[in-house]
Amino acid sequence: MNIKKLNTIQTQKVEAGDKTKFQVLISPDEAPNFAMRRFIIDPGGSMPRHTNTVEHEQFVLNGNAEVSIGDKIYQVEKNDIVFIQAGKIHGYVNTGNQPFEFLCMVPNKEDIIKISG
Amino acid sequence: MNIKKLNTIQTQKVEAGDKTKFQVLISPDEAPNFAMRRFIIDPGGSMPRHTNTVEHEQFVLNGNAEVSIGDKIYQVEKNDIVFIQAGKIHGYVNTGNQPFEFLCMVPNKEDIIKISG
Repeated sequence: MNIKKLNTIQTQKVEAGDKTKFQVLISPDEAPNFAMRRFIIDPGGSMPRHTNTVEHEQFVLNGNAEVSIGDKIYQVEKNDIVFIQAGKIHGYVNTGNQPFEFLCMVPNKEDIIKISG
Repeated sequence: MNIKKLNTIQTQKVEAGDKTKFQVLISPDEAPNFAMRRFIIDPGGSMPRHTNTVEHEQFVLNGNAEVSIGDKIYQVEKNDIVFIQAGKIHGYVNTGNQPFEFLCMVPNKEDIIKISG
C-alpha cells in the first residue's frame, strides 16, 4: 500500500483501557522496521499505568490528557511529542471534553505488556 | 526527554526543496530504533522526486499535496497515511493554499538521498 484514508481503517477496542480504542495505520506486516497506530481515548476515558518492552514515539493529534511517565505527570495537548522509553511505566487520563487522539509508533519487536497494580 | 512542545523545536530549511522546511521531533540520538520529523511545504512549494535508502512512514497533519510515488500520483490531505518503500522514487507538490505538513518517521539507518534527474 502507499496511501490509506484514516476513516477506512478498522477501529478496535483496547481491552485494558476505559473508553479507549485504536487503529493500526501501518502494521508490522506492511513495513520492515516499525508500526504506526492511532489511539483514541474518549472523554472520561483512560489507560491504566502499564509497561511495554518496546519504546513509544507519540504525537498528539487532538484533545488533552494527563500522562504519567515514571514518577512524573504531564499535561499534554495537540502537537505535543511524547517519548516513552522501553520498560518505563506510563498511563493516560483524558482530562478534556474532546477525544484525546495520538499516534503511537513502536518497533517491530515482541512487546510484553504488564498492567500495573 | 519525555515531552516536547512542537513550537520549541528548531525549524531548518530543506536545501533540496522549494519553500520547504523541517523539524526533528525525536532524533536518532534520543530513540534507539527510528526518528520522527515534521516537514512543512509552504503554498507554492515542492520537494523534487528523489529516492532514499530507508523507508518512510508518514501522516498528513495539514494541507493538500500531490504526492508521486513510483509511476503513480496521489492527491493527499489531512489524516492520510503515506508509506514509501525504501528505494522508491517519490516527490511532493503543495497544491493548496495552506502549508502542507506531515510527520515522517524513518529508521535509524544510513540514508543516502538521490535527487532525480
